[in-house]
Amino acid sequence: MNKQTISRRIRLIRSRMAKDNIDCLILTNPANVTYVTCFSGDDSWAAVTKSTVYLITDSRYTEQANKECLLCRIIERTRPIAQATAGLLNKVRSARIITVENSSAISIFEALKKHCNARVRSSADRVEQLRSVKDNTEIDAIKTAVSIATQALHDTLPLVKPGITENEVAGLLNLQFRRLGATNSFDTIVAFGPNASRPHHQPGSTKLKDSDTLLIDFGAKYKGYCSDITRCFAIGQATFLYRKAYDVVEKAQRAAIDTVRAGADMIKVDAIARQVIQDSNLPVYGHGTGHGFGLQIHELPTINEQSKGKLIAGQVVTIEPGIYMPGKLGIRLEEDVLVTETGCELLTGDCSHTLILPNQKP
Amino acid sequence: MNKQTISRRIRLIRSRMAKDNIDCLILTNPANVTYVTCFSGDDSWAAVTKSTVYLITDSRYTEQANKECLLCRIIERTRPIAQATAGLLNKVRSARIITVENSSAISIFEALKKHCNARVRSSADRVEQLRSVKDNTEIDAIKTAVSIATQALHDTLPLVKPGITENEVAGLLNLQFRRLGATNSFDTIVAFGPNASRPHHQPGSTKLKDSDTLLIDFGAKYKGYCSDITRCFAIGQATFLYRKAYDVVEKAQRAAIDTVRAGADMIKVDAIARQVIQDSNLPVYGHGTGHGFGLQIHELPTINEQSKGKLIAGQVVTIEPGIYMPGKLGIRLEEDVLVTETGCELLTGDCSHTLILPNQKP
Repeated sequence: MNKQTISRRIRLIRSRMAKDNIDCLILTNPANVTYVTCFSGDDSWAAVTKSTVYLITDSRYTEQANKECLLCRIIERTRPIAQATAGLLNKVRSARIITVENSSAISIFEALKKHCNARVRSSADRVEQLRSVKDNTEIDAIKTAVSIATQALHDTLPLVKPGITENEVAGLLNLQFRRLGATNSFDTIVAFGPNASRPHHQPGSTKLKDSDTLLIDFGAKYKGYCSDITRCFAIGQATFLYRKAYDVVEKAQRAAIDTVRAGADMIKVDAIARQVIQDSNLPVYGHGTGHGFGLQIHELPTINEQSKGKLIAGQVVTIEPGIYMPGKLGIRLEEDVLVTETGCELLTGDCSHTLILPNQKP
Repeated sequence: MNKQTISRRIRLIRSRMAKDNIDCLILTNPANVTYVTCFSGDDSWAAVTKSTVYLITDSRYTEQANKECLLCRIIERTRPIAQATAGLLNKVRSARIITVENSSAISIFEALKKHCNARVRSSADRVEQLRSVKDNTEIDAIKTAVSIATQALHDTLPLVKPGITENEVAGLLNLQFRRLGATNSFDTIVAFGPNASRPHHQPGSTKLKDSDTLLIDFGAKYKGYCSDITRCFAIGQATFLYRKAYDVVEKAQRAAIDTVRAGADMIKVDAIARQVIQDSNLPVYGHGTGHGFGLQIHELPTINEQSKGKLIAGQVVTIEPGIYMPGKLGIRLEEDVLVTETGCELLTGDCSHTLILPNQKP
């Protein structure tokens, strides 16, 4: 991250603040704090005034903050964070209207109202809106996160043999992330057989059987940035139903990706994927078709049946239709794409697209 | 988990609600939702009325909820969660005063106020207070989480050889958790040499050197319950300063643990540990001396210089003093103890207390 990038972000935030007549914006969402300060630790807030960006942290993080932060003043607090922040802002004369983001806890809002001399209001998603469009540094980090996840899957698949547990596959994949200099962007999902019909299945002690199927939903986090990929495999061979459902999901995904471009209505991207599945007479998934990601695994925009807006160039989103048949199977395929003016760039093109894995000896 | 335990929890929550004249309590903190419903997924709320506990979830989780939930009605929503919850409660005639926990986002509070016919208020920490005292099912799960973490460290230490990275040690330890049927209760911290002076250091690509030191802060999560342990090691031999600091931290920790019992002032437990370090003329740590844990890694009570209350039998807390000297060293030792009427039970007694690790060939 360089100073120009951070300085541009701060400028954009200040220009939105000016438009809404806000003197000071308090950020409590760790991803937003990272976005404006580069600080990657927890339990710290940022306060953006007309002249200064403050990071309010504590002694556990001061050393880290001094190393990481760009263009901000680091305040080491000893009091509870809302009190410390209020105390700081009470000394800033220009801060007459203070706004806190409305993803903050109600208790934070109440504490700030109690301790700030200025008027305190809440506001929606200001920084989240900005974050949905990625700058080049972010796109580079996301691409590396995708390629680490791709490599980690490649390294882990040969270890997937009958007898292994879901939990162990998840652990081995996560270890590969670490070996490649990354961590998880979320708890890896590994689901064998019909367990995959639960889209957010938590891996357990289920053992892989001969001719079993598996779903892996995984992502690496690199320099703070996520990737998010889902792949499905059948060991040795696939049943007629599994292969049919897989083909339908792939077709639905392809249709959606083909409609992605700057200016496309998100609700239409969602609808086209659903339509392909509906036309096949297989059950349509209940979750959204895609979501943005970056510093967080779920960011704006949200591509689902309620979506109102249009895609913007520079957004990075997943496209992830699925088919879930409880007791039978679950299939989801998830690609990451970068929205461009003329279409999109498929970031996950190098990640295995094979359906059948060899049936290895345990 | 059995129905009696859940039924007792619901009864206790209802009796607090009655005292505060609340007809309906909305829980949005996933740990609180789990506590009253047994549901372990995300993105779901619980609503406790005088007669019913509702789980408001979506199609991704319905199958899981049907499997896990005890004594609650599962509502599969299709609208945004605040709207769906308001719609549900608008049909419950007795729900005239609705309260949402104040750890919820401001945006949730605003959406509920907009969509609920009843009056909506916020309230502090009702369920968190209850959760701080563990029932037997919880204590059993925590003890298993401690023993899995203990075993995982035991299995991982032989792999810690010069040349290994912090990231890889963390990955190997996490893999052992998985092999033992658990996951992480938080991101494992592994810090080599002076990196350990940052209490929340994020493991990176630093390689272990000959005669290096390492700090590992780790915990397993088993059946939803956490453990939380920190150990420090010197490879082959320890410097005079490292050994001195280690001994002082151990003494401070022992002094604090000796004062833990039901009725003990938490501020005194904190003070005694700090005093030992101050007396040694080494720098006193800036973080708290301990915290509760259970479904979450940080729960009530908080044992620090601002603590006001007394310990209660059945609370499970960490005791974790440290010494941090930037550029030189960081040492923290963290035990888990169960508060009893007469003192405490040390849960982490079986976890390695060795300072020196053998200097293995890479």
